[in-house]
Amino acid sequence: MGIMSFDLKKYIAQKRKDIDEFINSYFNPSIIPSILHDSVLYSLTAGGKRLRPILCIASYEACDGNKNIVPYATAIEFIHTYSLIHDDLPAMDNDDLRRGKPTNHKVFGEGIAILAGDGLLTEAFTILANPEYADINPKTLLKVIYEISKAAGLRGMVAGQAYDLISEGKEPDEKIVEFIHVYKTAAMIKASVKSGAILAEVSEEKLHRLETYGHSIGLAFQIIDDILDIEGTTEEMGKPKGSDIERGKMTYPRVFGIENSKNQAKRLIEKALQEIEIFGEKAEPLREIAKFIITRTK
Amino acid sequence: MGIMSFDLKKYIAQKRKDIDEFINSYFNPSIIPSILHDSVLYSLTAGGKRLRPILCIASYEACDGNKNIVPYATAIEFIHTYSLIHDDLPAMDNDDLRRGKPTNHKVFGEGIAILAGDGLLTEAFTILANPEYADINPKTLLKVIYEISKAAGLRGMVAGQAYDLISEGKEPDEKIVEFIHVYKTAAMIKASVKSGAILAEVSEEKLHRLETYGHSIGLAFQIIDDILDIEGTTEEMGKPKGSDIERGKMTYPRVFGIENSKNQAKRLIEKALQEIEIFGEKAEPLREIAKFIITRTK
Repeated sequence: MGIMSFDLKKYIAQKRKDIDEFINSYFNPSIIPSILHDSVLYSLTAGGKRLRPILCIASYEACDGNKNIVPYATAIEFIHTYSLIHDDLPAMDNDDLRRGKPTNHKVFGEGIAILAGDGLLTEAFTILANPEYADINPKTLLKVIYEISKAAGLRGMVAGQAYDLISEGKEPDEKIVEFIHVYKTAAMIKASVKSGAILAEVSEEKLHRLETYGHSIGLAFQIIDDILDIEGTTEEMGKPKGSDIERGKMTYPRVFGIENSKNQAKRLIEKALQEIEIFGEKAEPLREIAKFIITRTK
Repeated sequence: MGIMSFDLKKYIAQKRKDIDEFINSYFNPSIIPSILHDSVLYSLTAGGKRLRPILCIASYEACDGNKNIVPYATAIEFIHTYSLIHDDLPAMDNDDLRRGKPTNHKVFGEGIAILAGDGLLTEAFTILANPEYADINPKTLLKVIYEISKAAGLRGMVAGQAYDLISEGKEPDEKIVEFIHVYKTAAMIKASVKSGAILAEVSEEKLHRLETYGHSIGLAFQIIDDILDIEGTTEEMGKPKGSDIERGKMTYPRVFGIENSKNQAKRLIEKALQEIEIFGEKAEPLREIAKFIITRTK
């Protein structure tokens, strides 16, 4: 594959197809109560970008991995989807719309939405604990489970969500907005990239570079999200524009101003690109994804 | 240790101490937002019986295991505690009291309670993915993660909870109450016992016997729970008596009558005791726990 010929759209479409096929093959409606089955699939197939599993696969490929790790990558999407379902609940962000569709609890009720999230989170680990999907060394899979669960748990995404929740309406604070963004969003994006590298059993140096890449694009992703809440359109975003402001959310533009936030996102993407230079052509998907993050409109 | 001298109270007290020590050493309040830290510890230290981790350890010991597996056993308690926090939420059972204390969301609010549950569930896997706690073979730990996550997920506890939720107020149905009890309660109790056996790398035959033991005492446990809701006192139970009836819950006594339910619980405990006969004296704690389950008053 020559650099000039790399087509991100095509790459993403192919990976999404693989991920969607795994999702559809995974659930057996005869065992799962049907309302729960419907609730889980509703959110899993609501048109997500599949950014995290695609990053995991792209990172794995950049490290010369050549097995089919789609099931493990998709486990990360299960965790991401659970976090969105719980995030949208009335007791959390109380959102009625997600990607232009009614949120899970609006369709299935709060009780089932809570359980669907719980189930997706748990099921991710059932997938990751199965070495047979791609004949992966058990020690390697344990490292992936450790990495992902730490990034998702009380010292990761859940901590970020808690700070996000308790900081609503508070005075702008640089340290707190940084904490929220690093833990709420960057931690899991970093873990997605790192998981691909761990699965490929890459060297410590390369792992560290991909870690920095993942952290940087993860933080940039959330900053751009904050900016889109101000500059995007409801149609593009699939949810009401300005909802962060209305809710008094601790966002980057609110703390640093919109121009500083844009510059910070740009610097982070540049740093990410620098870090993965040594991977050469094989990191082309990772490069294009980094550039996409800063130019996206939804 | 002679059979005559086995003292269950003392055994439980010692194991509880080990489990509580691990819990207190595990959390580092400097990384976790303090309200989340307080919320998690509030429920973890609310006076639970520690039945599941003690079963895991007792099963491990019955299989001649001789390492300190307390961290892995405690991970199961994390999952149990998460399930209680989410179960008590207004959108689920809407309980104000648990073990005589206000439920988590009553103290910390619904948002933090949801996150505390999410965090505990996730953190359980961070513990289970760390082979260094007791120098366990990674392949063995993966099997434990697989077993526990399957028992807790969409084909286990979460499925049971969903049926429990959607069956409120419905006509008594033998198949449905059986499904709810097997998945909501027995699955995780069985997985606790099985995990101990897997950690000890026991033979298939012994594993199968412990599996049957775990399933039987797990189902008996939930049947006794249903009976205590009718015959127990609010003081003993730590929550209002008769709340199942008030809510139209699908319980064993409601479907089969109270005498049939008591007999069924007795038969299950007898079956459990038979299954573990071959383990001899080493299974004395498992035997006494089985007997305790049927005689408990709270």
